[in-house]
Amino acid sequence: MPNLPYTLIKPLPVPGFRVGSASCGVKSPDLKGKRQDIALIVADVPAQAAAVFTQNHFRAACVDLGEKAIREHTTDIRAIIANAGNANAGVGEMERVWAQQLIDLGADVAGVAPYQVLSASTGVIGEPFPIERIRATIGEAKDSLAEDNWIQAAEAIRTTDTFAKYASKQFEVAGKTYTITGVSKGSGMIHPNMATMLGFIATDAPIPADALQRMLSKVANVSFNSISVDGDTSTNDTVYLLSSGLGLGYDELEDTSAFEQALEEVAIKLAQLIVRDGEGVTKFVTIEVTGAEDEEQARTLGRTIAVSPLVKTAFAGSDANWGRIIMAIGNSDAPIQPEKVSIQADDVLILKDGNLHPDYQDALGMAVFAKQEFTLRVDIGLGDASARVWTGDLTHEYIEINAEYRT
Amino acid sequence: MPNLPYTLIKPLPVPGFRVGSASCGVKSPDLKGKRQDIALIVADVPAQAAAVFTQNHFRAACVDLGEKAIREHTTDIRAIIANAGNANAGVGEMERVWAQQLIDLGADVAGVAPYQVLSASTGVIGEPFPIERIRATIGEAKDSLAEDNWIQAAEAIRTTDTFAKYASKQFEVAGKTYTITGVSKGSGMIHPNMATMLGFIATDAPIPADALQRMLSKVANVSFNSISVDGDTSTNDTVYLLSSGLGLGYDELEDTSAFEQALEEVAIKLAQLIVRDGEGVTKFVTIEVTGAEDEEQARTLGRTIAVSPLVKTAFAGSDANWGRIIMAIGNSDAPIQPEKVSIQADDVLILKDGNLHPDYQDALGMAVFAKQEFTLRVDIGLGDASARVWTGDLTHEYIEINAEYRT
Repeated sequence: MPNLPYTLIKPLPVPGFRVGSASCGVKSPDLKGKRQDIALIVADVPAQAAAVFTQNHFRAACVDLGEKAIREHTTDIRAIIANAGNANAGVGEMERVWAQQLIDLGADVAGVAPYQVLSASTGVIGEPFPIERIRATIGEAKDSLAEDNWIQAAEAIRTTDTFAKYASKQFEVAGKTYTITGVSKGSGMIHPNMATMLGFIATDAPIPADALQRMLSKVANVSFNSISVDGDTSTNDTVYLLSSGLGLGYDELEDTSAFEQALEEVAIKLAQLIVRDGEGVTKFVTIEVTGAEDEEQARTLGRTIAVSPLVKTAFAGSDANWGRIIMAIGNSDAPIQPEKVSIQADDVLILKDGNLHPDYQDALGMAVFAKQEFTLRVDIGLGDASARVWTGDLTHEYIEINAEYRT
Repeated sequence: MPNLPYTLIKPLPVPGFRVGSASCGVKSPDLKGKRQDIALIVADVPAQAAAVFTQNHFRAACVDLGEKAIREHTTDIRAIIANAGNANAGVGEMERVWAQQLIDLGADVAGVAPYQVLSASTGVIGEPFPIERIRATIGEAKDSLAEDNWIQAAEAIRTTDTFAKYASKQFEVAGKTYTITGVSKGSGMIHPNMATMLGFIATDAPIPADALQRMLSKVANVSFNSISVDGDTSTNDTVYLLSSGLGLGYDELEDTSAFEQALEEVAIKLAQLIVRDGEGVTKFVTIEVTGAEDEEQARTLGRTIAVSPLVKTAFAGSDANWGRIIMAIGNSDAPIQPEKVSIQADDVLILKDGNLHPDYQDALGMAVFAKQEFTLRVDIGLGDASARVWTGDLTHEYIEINAEYRT
């Protein structure tokens, strides 16, 4: 049961983009026709492109090829092809060949050149990539291309995700309305078998690739890099951002601040959906760190708290066990001074300047930790910087999913 | 059910030391007379002393006072007093007062000066320290002092430990036999409520404090700092090492290599017992990293693998999920080159130079991962350094213990 207390709103079409999907039985021939497992996003004009990739030293071939395409053809990207069901990773020398073949197939059905295509794969690793099965039915993706097809793309990249993830946002500059629409997948920083966090975001806002890249890198930090389900990062993690605006002949946006804000909103929404669908997650917790010397210090501390198994099991048990929280704070690299640390859960002040607050009672903290969603505020009193990190709890279901996945 | 497939051997007495215990009802008055919760180790002569402490920024007052005593009176220590049931941590300004009062009580019953006493506390945090209850019955510890009482001390410092932990080793230099005996506690790098990893080691080997400290720091790295149950480190972690030999008038040992080797053996045994008794642990896994540029790199990588929840749930599920292991390797800070990485489980070669070994079959890996104990060997092909780390699996029982501890 994911922690999703609301209904997602249908994503908006983005001028210049069409989306399609196919059912190729990537994971197993039995699934052919039963679930969509190929997503195709086609830009009808050359798109400006940006990307962020996994920092894991083991990177799948699709990540290497995607990085190369972004580096060499960043103002001339025409398609993204992605599959679920097989990560095409850890399979030795064929990995790069298969990754290129998937790109070639994508170029073929999109009617563009292979160098204009980005790819992403997610699913089980260490198994041969079924390129021939994909070749046989990839045509469906072309036939289904439509502006209004984003939900199908979100469905097609799901692995253990329990729901399809998407978000849209419109903003206005000088009387003209622009759209940002994105899809994501992932139900952990990493899934069973290293399936992956993916995000594909498209916009018609006319912004050149270098500015897109600068903003995506910044925004990824406060969104996709600020979530944690289990602290692990996969080999295939990828976020692509494409803009059709300049290709459509729009004038370049001079002021990009409204775009950046909308992009951040979409990216945070897509990232939070991953936590809400986290394996075994029942609680959605925002960890807000304030009083840090700089933002990176705040984020690192937030992540240290967010990945601690003892903190996450305390969340699971609705146990306002602040002792574990100060333990996690004390374990961070930040130059923590205990007498400056304050901790608050929603509006309940627990620790003030290193001492238990005189009005605090266990029952008050317990009432907050029992909620399905709450915010944990940690102030370390060293400076003015802050950051937010989102995480879930660590439950029996996580063990269930991960200890019993292949057996 | 701890993973302890053998019976511990009774620890040997150490010339110059007597050990006692008392039942003071530290955690609750109801427990008075029912379980031992104060351990007292008395050196009959001034002991040379060394210590290693937690690196957590939140440190309990007993750690601060212990560090000060070691710094100022390292050649003149006469006693260790330790209690279970209350960590005397996170209680504000009284913490230091109570920590000093415990030391004063220890000095009183041992008949030595307060500056000669080291202390350690473990148990729940955030609760007033019951110094008056301790004062009322601490006399029992004095009355029970005996050379042969090490098991009682090991029993008295238990919190959630399911068995008492101790180890001894004798070695010979120039025809004379010396003894090292130690006790430890902990069933995680941290317990519920931040109770603690503690180790107290005594020897009659005549070695001055500065050499003891040098060897203890080195040995702690390959023993207590090389275990991981859940990756968390508590506020109270402490290892004390005392030597009576010089106080007994023995000639200083010129060659300390036999001592260092024996100390390492005892420390590793004591550390491994903590993993074997880890919360919810059913598997005991040795992670051996070879081919690193230096030992620290090897150890850090070993710990990265050992703390990954996905790796630990794979252990729990007897699932030879090597994908998760390469994911964890790739997430380390070491400059990993995937094509140089090899992975072996006991004698089964899984990955060789970044490629799945042609003879490898899932069933072979599964057979190793199903064992109660096995060794995972990871070679990263960058250099000649190596390190070993010991860890357990992550099971439902861990969640049970930690999500439901206070509720």
